[in-house]
Amino acid sequence: MASCIFCKIAEGEVESWIVYEDELVKAFFDINPASEGHTLIIPKKHYENIYEIPENVLERIIIVTKKLAIIYKKALDVKAVNILHASGKEAQQDVFHFHIHLVPRYKNDRLNLWYQSQPEVKANFGKILEKTRKFID
Amino acid sequence: MASCIFCKIAEGEVESWIVYEDELVKAFFDINPASEGHTLIIPKKHYENIYEIPENVLERIIIVTKKLAIIYKKALDVKAVNILHASGKEAQQDVFHFHIHLVPRYKNDRLNLWYQSQPEVKANFGKILEKTRKFID
Repeated sequence: MASCIFCKIAEGEVESWIVYEDELVKAFFDINPASEGHTLIIPKKHYENIYEIPENVLERIIIVTKKLAIIYKKALDVKAVNILHASGKEAQQDVFHFHIHLVPRYKNDRLNLWYQSQPEVKANFGKILEKTRKFID
Repeated sequence: MASCIFCKIAEGEVESWIVYEDELVKAFFDINPASEGHTLIIPKKHYENIYEIPENVLERIIIVTKKLAIIYKKALDVKAVNILHASGKEAQQDVFHFHIHLVPRYKNDRLNLWYQSQPEVKANFGKILEKTRKFID
């Protein structure tokens, strides 16, 4: 897509700090990093979100994510990582080209990447499950 | 693992709100949900984290995650999801059995699942990349 910044990075039209690249996937440092080694893993082709990305590309992306997690364990001496992803503007997606964040975590870093639970949702488990089951084969 | 709650859920020794199950994977509602439909996807076998989980099991997990995202789009009428994962206690991992969180997001929900960036990290991009490149084949 002509106006997509991640397409431009994928095609090398915009420079980036490239960590890994193959025929399907590119990985580069997030320009607004949450921690040292914070990396984005993207498909080279434009897919907006998890609803659109083909299964074989998604598989490659998660395997590259795992490989980088292992590399960062050695290279950056970290024992912990978060993986984050957003699909859709209500999920706080910012760039509308599928991407996974790999965020190395360090002892006593100042990050809080976790959520607050909403106990009142538990009362609806039965209702939610019923709605969902209709769509499972 | 005898003491692992997710192993007990995988084996049906502890009851859960099961959404999906196959020979490798189980998906069930998080008992401390962040939103309606908040689901955990786990391997049935015990792997502690992303460093340990075999590639074929990880691939299956991400494909099930995508399938559930699509199902929730229809079943729960949502257009957005977050995927969250933690490996390691510094990454705020709570249960030490690999799991992915799939969190449906709703318009005007009160969640904030995003991070604060740390601009000072950008100064080290060259140094971090150099350390990392040694380990990439």
